[in-house]
Amino acid sequence: NPSFKIAIIPGDGIGKEVIPEGLRVLDAAAKRFDIRLEYKHIAWASCDYYAQTGKMMPDDWKQQLQGCDAIYFGAVGWPATVPDHVSLWGSLLKFRREFDQYVNLRPVRLFEGVPCPLANRKPGDIDFYVVRENTEGEYTAIGGIMYEGTERELVLQQSAFSRRGTDRILKYAFELAQSRTRRRLTVATKSNGIAISMPWWDSRADNMAKSYPDVAVDKQHIDILAARFVLQPDRFDVVVASNLFGDILSDLGPACTGTMGLAPSANLNPERIFPSLFEPVHGSAPDIYGKNIANPIAMIWSGALMLDFLGQRAAHDAILDAIKQVLADGPRTPDLGGNARTADIGIAIAAAV
Amino acid sequence: NPSFKIAIIPGDGIGKEVIPEGLRVLDAAAKRFDIRLEYKHIAWASCDYYAQTGKMMPDDWKQQLQGCDAIYFGAVGWPATVPDHVSLWGSLLKFRREFDQYVNLRPVRLFEGVPCPLANRKPGDIDFYVVRENTEGEYTAIGGIMYEGTERELVLQQSAFSRRGTDRILKYAFELAQSRTRRRLTVATKSNGIAISMPWWDSRADNMAKSYPDVAVDKQHIDILAARFVLQPDRFDVVVASNLFGDILSDLGPACTGTMGLAPSANLNPERIFPSLFEPVHGSAPDIYGKNIANPIAMIWSGALMLDFLGQRAAHDAILDAIKQVLADGPRTPDLGGNARTADIGIAIAAAV
Ligand SMILES: CC(C)[C@H](C(=O)O)[C@@H](O)C(=O)O
Ligand SMILES: CC(C)[C@H](C(=O)O)[C@@H](O)C(=O)O
Repeated sequence: NPSFKIAIIPGDGIGKEVIPEGLRVLDAAAKRFDIRLEYKHIAWASCDYYAQTGKMMPDDWKQQLQGCDAIYFGAVGWPATVPDHVSLWGSLLKFRREFDQYVNLRPVRLFEGVPCPLANRKPGDIDFYVVRENTEGEYTAIGGIMYEGTERELVLQQSAFSRRGTDRILKYAFELAQSRTRRRLTVATKSNGIAISMPWWDSRADNMAKSYPDVAVDKQHIDILAARFVLQPDRFDVVVASNLFGDILSDLGPACTGTMGLAPSANLNPERIFPSLFEPVHGSAPDIYGKNIANPIAMIWSGALMLDFLGQRAAHDAILDAIKQVLADGPRTPDLGGNARTADIGIAIAAAV
Repeated sequence: NPSFKIAIIPGDGIGKEVIPEGLRVLDAAAKRFDIRLEYKHIAWASCDYYAQTGKMMPDDWKQQLQGCDAIYFGAVGWPATVPDHVSLWGSLLKFRREFDQYVNLRPVRLFEGVPCPLANRKPGDIDFYVVRENTEGEYTAIGGIMYEGTERELVLQQSAFSRRGTDRILKYAFELAQSRTRRRLTVATKSNGIAISMPWWDSRADNMAKSYPDVAVDKQHIDILAARFVLQPDRFDVVVASNLFGDILSDLGPACTGTMGLAPSANLNPERIFPSLFEPVHGSAPDIYGKNIANPIAMIWSGALMLDFLGQRAAHDAILDAIKQVLADGPRTPDLGGNARTADIGIAIAAAV
């Protein structure tokens, strides 16, 4: 039987409320599909841990996680006690970079039972993936301030793109597109404005396209691409983007389907040299923590992505079908207009699995 | 009587079709409000001119325009003969930079008679401005490629923000917010990811806010901000953003109101040391050029913004009311489901003025 070791990191706020429901559904899927899941429960990478120790993670965090196949991650952040840049750069962003999770994968899908902010869109119309580069590009702390504190102040900020980093994310996206029915890939760019990195990014995409003649490729500038997420979301299949553009598009996509609170995300090290990390897109939501009304579907869907990544496609599909069924028929938490509690959703989805 | 000298640059494609309608409406407003408009018609800054001369503009373009109060600009670009980066960097982007048009102002508004891609939004619900920095920031050609053409290739791209450039766009936005009823300003940022320039940008916004205690300020990361354009567009009043973020938001905003084809844009040098430039957001649209079906409303609305900038608020309001009336009652060009021709719209709006 397939067997996997999973690190469980609830983190902060509603992360602690949705993780148990995620595990409930994982257990149901494991039972049905005969998969052995061994959990390693971890209390650090949380602001509570920070309050006790002055840091987000112990020094040997890498060693503690190194044997795991994946990290199942709730949410980090408690701005009342720890500033976000400390909690996030001290945990989530460290995982992404030090475990070389260079693919950030986010599905965008319109479901029955989820109110859509776009007019005249039906379930099934929208079904695509945003593939975001997750380790380099525009997210850097390289640069500086000249004439600091004076009228002449000048701030320089560097972006850095490597061929290795760019080619591997493009390759991942081309292969994902190739595996799908429509085989369409949209490449986000801004080569008409950002004059060094983006024309080069375009040329890497053109080069990679030669190896995938069966994928229809389309480069679009980020301004018009963002507009088309609203105007023609049904036209997308796989969208690949740099770190910053992917960050924007992978919030905008779920916004267009009304699934910001339901959206999962996978931070992948496809070579499996390091553990990959699966997390809901929503954060720790201090405003609703403690009421047990958080919707656990993003956490549960993230678990499905984890099983898919671990080769358990049938288990992934079963969880996704169960999610669809509960979204359509209820129960529903307050964010979707019902009055179910967090555990009710987990129980219903586990039962459907 | 107020008197202004306006340079008229039709440019390419439908730019040449919508300019006459823009002038028709400007003339009607000038007549009604007793404004003297002197036009200087210019055939360069077009791909036709490029075909004849090998450049987009004559060497003395600055001198030729220097006496003008404003530039009324159709659209540039004819990719079949001149690549976009040549035609745009050789004209539009040169104007923005060399005439120090550091404010790019774009209104976002939902009108009766314009189908809205968002569900359940009514005319009047959405009414805000995007204020975009237009001369620096992420749009640079500074940087380079190391180990070019090898596996180790590394691309560095610089962004550059000056205190002068940042403070003046923030000041413009704060003053615009202060002049409006709701007095709300949203500042686009990404200080949790782009670690040098964006925290500094935030600090400039905080500093500027001290001088405008009556403006409610709100900093939002670009990812969630883009999502909120779709989810809560009624909450925005004035949004200020860097060059890149403003580029994205000022396409996304009009996409959300279904007005991408109707949206105007003002490139302002508020001190009036140089002429400001007023242009539709849509491009030269080679696919529909020659059919006389282009909708001239973006061009006409741009003319209204021009009169407003020149101090003729009443004339601006009259044109905008006339636009609203024609959008609600017709005639309509094919993009809005009618079969009127370009001139029909100009004639109807001019009559309503
Ligand atoms: C054509 C392009 C360089 C330009 C920009 O990005 O500024 C356009 O998108 C705009 O917004 O006017
Ligand atoms: C919290 C922030 C740094 C992060 C990012 O920009 O990567 C978040 O927006 C995300 O998308 O996971």
